[in-house]
This record gives sequence, structure tokens and C-alpha cells, in this order.
Amino acid sequence: MTTDTPVRDGLDFPLPGLAIGDDVADLLFREARSAAAFTSADVSDEQLAAVYDLVKWGPTALNTVPLRLLVVRTPEARQRLAAHMSDGNRDRVLAAPVTLVVAADTGFHRHLPTLAPHMTAFADVLEGQPEQRDSMARTNALIQVGYLVIGLRAAGLAAGPMGGMEAQAIDDEFFAENGWKSLMVINVGHVEGEGTHRPRGERLSYAQASLTV
Amino acid sequence: MTTDTPVRDGLDFPLPGLAIGDDVADLLFREARSAAAFTSADVSDEQLAAVYDLVKWGPTALNTVPLRLLVVRTPEARQRLAAHMSDGNRDRVLAAPVTLVVAADTGFHRHLPTLAPHMTAFADVLEGQPEQRDSMARTNALIQVGYLVIGLRAAGLAAGPMGGMEAQAIDDEFFAENGWKSLMVINVGHVEGEGTHRPRGERLSYAQASLTV
Repeated sequence: MTTDTPVRDGLDFPLPGLAIGDDVADLLFREARSAAAFTSADVSDEQLAAVYDLVKWGPTALNTVPLRLLVVRTPEARQRLAAHMSDGNRDRVLAAPVTLVVAADTGFHRHLPTLAPHMTAFADVLEGQPEQRDSMARTNALIQVGYLVIGLRAAGLAAGPMGGMEAQAIDDEFFAENGWKSLMVINVGHVEGEGTHRPRGERLSYAQASLTV
Repeated sequence: MTTDTPVRDGLDFPLPGLAIGDDVADLLFREARSAAAFTSADVSDEQLAAVYDLVKWGPTALNTVPLRLLVVRTPEARQRLAAHMSDGNRDRVLAAPVTLVVAADTGFHRHLPTLAPHMTAFADVLEGQPEQRDSMARTNALIQVGYLVIGLRAAGLAAGPMGGMEAQAIDDEFFAENGWKSLMVINVGHVEGEGTHRPRGERLSYAQASLTV
């Protein structure tokens, strides 16, 4: 894992079967690790906006793009969030340079006239189907969480995703008026060298994780 | 969108706020489009394995990595799958170089002694909690779908994700014995030049999709 925003090179040597080079494959997937602790270096709003402007292009069903980000910066907001995290995760929220509550917007359909003009009539149908909207928002925002993790790494940042939290309490605390549903919390920052990681977990092989018919 | 596996360069000029170059940002996010039609070029098992070997490293809760892939190649298997796709998607399955049924393995806990040895006791608890396993498998496999879409693009491939299908019927048809739950179908292949795309949909701005506290 790299510390500051590096220049990636080595793309003149794409890997067998891939169109990107070793450096990029390492940065985005192979060497990247979930981070539990960070250096004191800041993460600017400009950096987060650059990540979003990359990640927003990832495909979702009907172009619903329901992922929303609560960017938690102030000491007061950190305390409000930390109160609803599980024990092991509380101090991490208080210590991270910035923390994102990633959420699904159950009101995504209100944007469909802009995002998918041919679906405007369907947006009216969805207005009366809150359960359907909840399911669509969660499904597609979770796919976008995958894009987001890669996008953070593409900005030279380290991500520490955490699921151990009281989601309903977080929604009541922050999203009572806008209908967002929290999915996960991601601490974001920089790590020094290899960071402070546990040994890397095993993965299943392609043969274990796939079937061909 | 590029046609064959190109050499990416230009990474000596990373974008403001990003650690990757224009070419890679375009390939993975900005210029990539969901594809409805493909050239006749094959997609080999080796290419799919290379994609998996990249994507498998993306983080999931407790390292559960529950994403599974059904690789649909034979004419007979295509017909079996196409029968359960919605009208607009049936011909696309029959025509694609290869089609993936992406699924969540509700039996993921059986791998935890290997994937997360410190969670072996929890795996025993999960054995008696099928609803909890279903939820964990779907949540984490959906995040992995995000990694997969980016991973396919990193291999120079185009992805055509489709949600219009009878998921239960597909599970009955292909997964009656292994407990996989289908999430989505992704056609995979190569596209020529810009492909045959509809105009690109709008996206929400960072200001619209985020709140800072």
C-alpha cells in the first residue's frame, strides 16, 4: 500500500488476460488492504469529490445510482456516529481522518426524470411502492459500494469498511428527514507503508467459486 | 471503449485527486458503458479466471467472499437460462460470447474455517441461521458485483449487467443443490469502437449525492 498519491507506471506491461498493468492491479485489488488505522494526513473534500466523480459512472439498474455519502468530519458529528458503532469500531471512527456513512436513498425515484427520462412514468409507480424502492435502493447502492472501495483506492486512499453498527439508530440520528438508509461505515485516510494489518485472509480459487455449463 | 486488450499508458499523468491516469480512469469508469451487443470474439476461461483472481481480493465482511459465478457457454445451457430472462433480455443471453449468472452462496459459512479461521465458531452458529446467512451472502456478494464489473473492464472486456429475470426460477434450474442465489446476469464480450449504446444517462453531482457534517 502506498502512502501519498503516487504516480502509477508500469502499464506498458499489462498482465496476462488483463488490460491494466501490475501497478494498477496492485493498487486497486491485489496489494490494497482494509485499513484499521491511518496517518494524520487529511483527506480533502476535493479528493472525495474526485472519487465520487469517478465512481458515479458505474452502472446501476435503470441508472438509479442510489448511493449517498454522509461525510463525517466534525468532532461533534464523530461522537454522534461513534455512539452507534459496535465496541471495536467506535475508536476507529473517532480517530479516522474522515468517515463516510454510505447509504441507499429510498427516494432515488424522484431523480429518475433526470437520470432515466424514459422511466418517468415508472417513477410515479414507485412513489406508491416503498418496499420495492427500499429493495432497489439497497441492491444498487451495495453494488456502488464496490465501485466506491475501488474508487477510493484509485485516489491513493485507504478504506476501512465496517459493518458493526446499529444501522437503524444511525438512520434515526442522521437520516430522519431524507429517507437514506445506512449500509456501512467506511473510514478513509492514508496508511504508512504496509499499514498495521492482520495477515491476509485466504480466498477461494476460481475453480471453487465458479461452475461452467 | 476499446476492442481488444490494449496497452494502457498515460499513467505518468495522474488526474487531480487521483493516483491513476486518464486511460485507466476511462477504461474502468468514465468511458466504460454497459454493453447490449458484442463482437463475435471469444472470452476464454483463462480471461475469466484472470478477472476472478483480481476481483477476489476486494474486501467483504469477515472475508466471507460469497460471490459465485455460473459461466454459461453451451447452447443448451444458454437456452435453459434464456427461458427465465425477461423478454428484452432473452436474445441477449443467446447472442453473448459468454454469460455469467452472478450468485450469492448461502453456504459461504462452510468456507470460514479457511477464509477466516478466527471465525470458525461463528460458522457453527451460522449453520443454524439460514436467514442471517441469506442476508450476509446477498449483501456481500452485491458489493463483490461492483468489484466484478470493474474487474471485467480491467481485462478489456465489456459487461452487460441485466436484472430482468426470474431469479427463483434460475435458482431452481441451476442451483437446486448448492444453495446459490442468483443476483444478476452479466453478458460478457468485446465491443467494437463505441459499441451500440444509448446516449449516456445523467448522474447526480457530488453536492447532490453527499452531505457533510
